[in-house]
Amino acid sequence: MRFDVLILGSSSATPIYGRHPTAQLINVNEQLYLVDCGEGTQVQLIKYGVRSNRIKHIFISHLHGDHYLGLIGLISSMHLVGRKDELHIYGPPGLKEIIELHFLHSQTELRYSLYIHTTQDSTNNVVLENENLRVSTFPLSHRIACTGFRFDENKRLPAIDREKVTTIGIPTALLPLIKRGHDYTAPDGTVYRWQELTIAPAPPRSYAYCSDTVKTSSYLPYIQQVDLLYHEATFLDEMRDRAAATYHTTALQAAEIAAEVGAKKLLIGHYSARYKDLKPLLHESKSVFGATQLALEGKWYSI
Amino acid sequence: MRFDVLILGSSSATPIYGRHPTAQLINVNEQLYLVDCGEGTQVQLIKYGVRSNRIKHIFISHLHGDHYLGLIGLISSMHLVGRKDELHIYGPPGLKEIIELHFLHSQTELRYSLYIHTTQDSTNNVVLENENLRVSTFPLSHRIACTGFRFDENKRLPAIDREKVTTIGIPTALLPLIKRGHDYTAPDGTVYRWQELTIAPAPPRSYAYCSDTVKTSSYLPYIQQVDLLYHEATFLDEMRDRAAATYHTTALQAAEIAAEVGAKKLLIGHYSARYKDLKPLLHESKSVFGATQLALEGKWYSI
Repeated sequence: MRFDVLILGSSSATPIYGRHPTAQLINVNEQLYLVDCGEGTQVQLIKYGVRSNRIKHIFISHLHGDHYLGLIGLISSMHLVGRKDELHIYGPPGLKEIIELHFLHSQTELRYSLYIHTTQDSTNNVVLENENLRVSTFPLSHRIACTGFRFDENKRLPAIDREKVTTIGIPTALLPLIKRGHDYTAPDGTVYRWQELTIAPAPPRSYAYCSDTVKTSSYLPYIQQVDLLYHEATFLDEMRDRAAATYHTTALQAAEIAAEVGAKKLLIGHYSARYKDLKPLLHESKSVFGATQLALEGKWYSI
Repeated sequence: MRFDVLILGSSSATPIYGRHPTAQLINVNEQLYLVDCGEGTQVQLIKYGVRSNRIKHIFISHLHGDHYLGLIGLISSMHLVGRKDELHIYGPPGLKEIIELHFLHSQTELRYSLYIHTTQDSTNNVVLENENLRVSTFPLSHRIACTGFRFDENKRLPAIDREKVTTIGIPTALLPLIKRGHDYTAPDGTVYRWQELTIAPAPPRSYAYCSDTVKTSSYLPYIQQVDLLYHEATFLDEMRDRAAATYHTTALQAAEIAAEVGAKKLLIGHYSARYKDLKPLLHESKSVFGATQLALEGKWYSI
């Protein structure tokens, strides 16, 4: 099953050097989810060949412009190109009011159903569950209300060990039960445990998105053991004070967090406009957490 | 004196083929004015080497997203890069409320003074006058309240005919008076009319911006005799009905308008996403009004 993330925007508040404000597209089993939607996201989607009407769910972390100012344009364009499917947006208090005010003044009546779900930065909440995954919010620590998002792949059923069930001669009709944990008793009374008749599935994968936040221990419980951690790394550690003052993180701190929570891989982004060259951020993070990659626009990262 | 317009965005509502939503930069004697501010305008300004903090006045025609969704991002970035100069925005009712709601939720307190002036689409009003020009709004006819903008260069004083005043021996101290229309009486009683001592200035130039609107006669009085008319030309004339239904104009109609008002030159833009190739729009307009040019992003047009 596919579980990948495409970086659409990697800059912090000021777009520069061809970098755009934050947005990411997540593909889980060919279903598309958008996380944050900075200004210009609809153009980035076109650039990277993504049909925006395939997106059914959009998650907004907080109401700083570089994380959501592309939203009204995107949902308006979806309307203009004839979208019929419903769209769900998950975002902080205030987002609904902002969207409604825009559409009031533009006199836009969307041709599709738009559902705006208000998130809370005080708790850890599951906001979406479907056949593929579970998405939950968790509180980050930023200047204004801000949540992270964790994407957990559903636990998959084991696969049937075809060779073994054929040898034993188990009726096909019973295989779905065996996959779900029922043992098999043969006509001669022999009991075959379901575990020996199946092949264990790959463990479910997880992705956590943390932008924007100062480094604190408060959100670490929610991102334990993720396969891929996206964490903002706005500054180099020599600017640690500035990072704290602006409720942001340094590349070194992002690496420390990845190590502390036992993440398998780390993806850093949300780069300050002061860094034209990103290599120093990568090197700093790798000095603490080797499996770091830079979030680069247009690149897919496998989870 | 410089009086030029730079196209930053040429598309209608859906950005495509590398075209961006509407925005234009006007340079009048090295002072910069922005007209409309579609999503991504701040990135377009960077691309074309314009320091956004040189802009002191922004004019917004109406509250369809493709004409103003880049505004919050732009004025936020001005704040982030340390702007101190005041900024004036002229736009329709509702714009102030939208901007204030964004900044309420992002908890942004601008470090510079922002003045939002509400325009009315029911009248023709001068909204700005300074040493170089006069800007007035006039009502267009769109689905929602929408104004055009007319930029009129101030009448310039004549230049002194240096050769003549030297030959006659007119004291330098009197030259400013002569420029302003005072005759000169020589010691021998000869009267020299100021007209014979000066060289007439070039007539003041004018630029009119019409986007978005259906073709009507109601706004023609306000754009008479302009040197350069920018007029939207969303569709080819074969889609005249669709243009009328959506309160837009065809390339042919834009040309008819340019001819009717006696414009010297016509610039067409706001192209529908259905036209990858713009040549048919240009040819159609030129068939009626020869001095037509396509608005192309990144190109400066002299007024």
